[in-house]
Amino acid sequence: MQTEPDLSAQHHVIIIGCGFGGLEAARSLNHPRVRITLIDRSNHHLFQPLLYQVATAGLSAPSIAAPIRHMLRRQRNVTVLMAEVGGIDKAARQVKLSEGQVLSYDALIVATGATHSYFGRDEWAQHAPGLKTLADAFKLRARILLAFEQAEKTGAPEARAPWLNFIIIGGGPTGVEMAGTLAEIARHTLRDEFRRIDPASAQILLLEGSDRVLQAFPPELSAKAGRQLEALGVQLHCGSRVVQIDAEGVEIEEQLPAPEGGAPQTRRRRIPARTVVWAAGVAASPLGRSLGLPLDRAGRVIVEPELSVADHAELYVIGDLAAAQSHEKDGRALPVPGVSPAAKQMGRLAAANILARLQGKTAQKFRYVDYGALATIGRKAAVADLGRFRFSGYFAWLFWLFVHVYFLIGFRNRLVVLMDWAWAYLSFQRYARVIAEPAGGAEADS
Amino acid sequence: MQTEPDLSAQHHVIIIGCGFGGLEAARSLNHPRVRITLIDRSNHHLFQPLLYQVATAGLSAPSIAAPIRHMLRRQRNVTVLMAEVGGIDKAARQVKLSEGQVLSYDALIVATGATHSYFGRDEWAQHAPGLKTLADAFKLRARILLAFEQAEKTGAPEARAPWLNFIIIGGGPTGVEMAGTLAEIARHTLRDEFRRIDPASAQILLLEGSDRVLQAFPPELSAKAGRQLEALGVQLHCGSRVVQIDAEGVEIEEQLPAPEGGAPQTRRRRIPARTVVWAAGVAASPLGRSLGLPLDRAGRVIVEPELSVADHAELYVIGDLAAAQSHEKDGRALPVPGVSPAAKQMGRLAAANILARLQGKTAQKFRYVDYGALATIGRKAAVADLGRFRFSGYFAWLFWLFVHVYFLIGFRNRLVVLMDWAWAYLSFQRYARVIAEPAGGAEADS
Repeated sequence: MQTEPDLSAQHHVIIIGCGFGGLEAARSLNHPRVRITLIDRSNHHLFQPLLYQVATAGLSAPSIAAPIRHMLRRQRNVTVLMAEVGGIDKAARQVKLSEGQVLSYDALIVATGATHSYFGRDEWAQHAPGLKTLADAFKLRARILLAFEQAEKTGAPEARAPWLNFIIIGGGPTGVEMAGTLAEIARHTLRDEFRRIDPASAQILLLEGSDRVLQAFPPELSAKAGRQLEALGVQLHCGSRVVQIDAEGVEIEEQLPAPEGGAPQTRRRRIPARTVVWAAGVAASPLGRSLGLPLDRAGRVIVEPELSVADHAELYVIGDLAAAQSHEKDGRALPVPGVSPAAKQMGRLAAANILARLQGKTAQKFRYVDYGALATIGRKAAVADLGRFRFSGYFAWLFWLFVHVYFLIGFRNRLVVLMDWAWAYLSFQRYARVIAEPAGGAEADS
Repeated sequence: MQTEPDLSAQHHVIIIGCGFGGLEAARSLNHPRVRITLIDRSNHHLFQPLLYQVATAGLSAPSIAAPIRHMLRRQRNVTVLMAEVGGIDKAARQVKLSEGQVLSYDALIVATGATHSYFGRDEWAQHAPGLKTLADAFKLRARILLAFEQAEKTGAPEARAPWLNFIIIGGGPTGVEMAGTLAEIARHTLRDEFRRIDPASAQILLLEGSDRVLQAFPPELSAKAGRQLEALGVQLHCGSRVVQIDAEGVEIEEQLPAPEGGAPQTRRRRIPARTVVWAAGVAASPLGRSLGLPLDRAGRVIVEPELSVADHAELYVIGDLAAAQSHEKDGRALPVPGVSPAAKQMGRLAAANILARLQGKTAQKFRYVDYGALATIGRKAAVADLGRFRFSGYFAWLFWLFVHVYFLIGFRNRLVVLMDWAWAYLSFQRYARVIAEPAGGAEADS
């Protein structure tokens, strides 16, 4: 048992959510006048940019997830609780845990991020899982590996095709990464391992509603990404709107070229597939709605320039849950992208503003510093947009690798992840191809 | 698609189960006159001797599990099917898969091993999970880590104790390994990470029904193992029979010293504990019973000296499922221990006898070559019985480490496992402390 300091004298900050924003806020509040309670539903901080590698069996879960209380063990003013938050009472300044405990706060940071959105079609979730948590990644890994197993086992050749069709819905960074990696698995990783099927005959389809992948990038990099995907064997379908998903496949509405003098036409088409990945929509975490504050169309909480909310200078919302703006020096207010550097920068500012108020100083407005954007496509392929420098291909991939390994939390993970990648690169192998549940059991993990 | 050889000319061997025995049999049947169908419920071969390391967060699952079809990709006469077997028809020489397919064989090797036995008290399973599969290991890992989380979260100090009591039932190798490792986690790994509880105050109880741990070892090594366990902080209770397990704890009947001139007495006692690990009983896989053959008391199939079964020279049962005897040169028939070297040796002999029959030669009797026994206890502690050489302590632990890393399948795994252990040894850390399911969710994995 630790001897506890005089708690009444300290400013009690509760942080909900230990993603990039919440973790950065906790670290920035390492101050003797503050004590922190950090609440997360998981026991680990997740390096989400590499989650697709767990889903595609390239990395094991512990390589990208570290126990929160281990990361913060030396910061003595933090108490970590693994719990779910049931509600927030802004007026009473209280957080209620689902299990019933009530915690009072002097300042609160809500950083619970985003979840999948199926645009009101929640029944699609069972057929087309998304990728936000480790549990999601294990579910996808099992589905992908089991599809090849099922194709090998199926007696009738005509029944095999749907097992060898893989559809990824959404051409953002996650969809592009998943499609490129799936193509690599089918063409290289599984070579020589099957006797009745040829894994390389698998079809990897990437469906994107708009006219190009990676919308957040300049059009010329989107075009390069599209060409790199096709070189890897991915079939790219832009202008494809999904209208139905069920256990047997996906129904899409495709835009056709307009006939001469006529209006653009669409065509409905069904693609049979047993494995569908949802990488299309995200929505703000439901906790945002429960705050009773104005939301934007995506369900994000509208925040003041200082990242606190209206009438509650002690309540901050940061990261993907916040509809924040970047307040430029020239007075413009720009939108902030939903990326981890933005969440970290918000976490740092919310912490600084809490300390400023405590010391009678003025809170600062949020300004996002953009270091550029990176997306990987697959083996040796990536695109980078660093503002003045835009590049793609092998060098962009090496740059992507360096940046991601550098930002991975903890020395051990960095080294092991680099080794795993070096091994995968040289051998074309993916070592984490484990389905923990037996055949006929529930869906799997590892 | 591979071009298939003339299958009718080949001897079709079906192997059910890809543990140590089944895998060795498949490898030994790499012969042009044989084609093999290898059926397993999992997609991976599991290095079971290190499964307790996955359960105690020291290793990630992919470090000890490799995809079966990857291991056998170069052996072109093997087709791997991930499927569950629903039944075996000895007379028709057919194996039926649970999904309905029927496969005919010329020879069959059944190698489905053992599972937990709760001695008829199957309702204990939910409270005291055992450790045979990766899914078991993830369940245990989550329970152990969540117990400390729950203790930290619990408001009332008196409610904490049951969360900090860990009971391991059964003093065989698995129970001893689990108890020693849990003590290390409580005393070292979690140091500095909690604010309300002291993890080192956790009680680790090892309950053994007989008068000593590690019954398969000579008594002096059992005594040394007991002292090493106690030095690590484990409370060892020999002569404790479990009479009840529920969600709140375990009820035991303890043997008390006999009073002068009287009979030995027993006492019933309840130990509150939220985390109970079952390492007491194993029973042969249920597939053995379905064969309609004579079984021994443990449910193992009684086999002929050649490892085939009575009246069916084409049907072999090997590994933990077989009640086999070792036929010594001097004519004695000795029992065979349920360890991986025995399973491997049986797999090799069954394969050799199938090839012998095919070539009109005489089948050989099974003789077990005993290389000794090893059990690890925890950090720097182990016992080794190599027949003429018996030793314990640090040197035995180094020897144990060397043997286990050597036998781990695949170069990559060996290297990574050694690195993980070197890191764990120097830092006292266990890197795989990930619970994949969030608080309030179902039980976890990773």
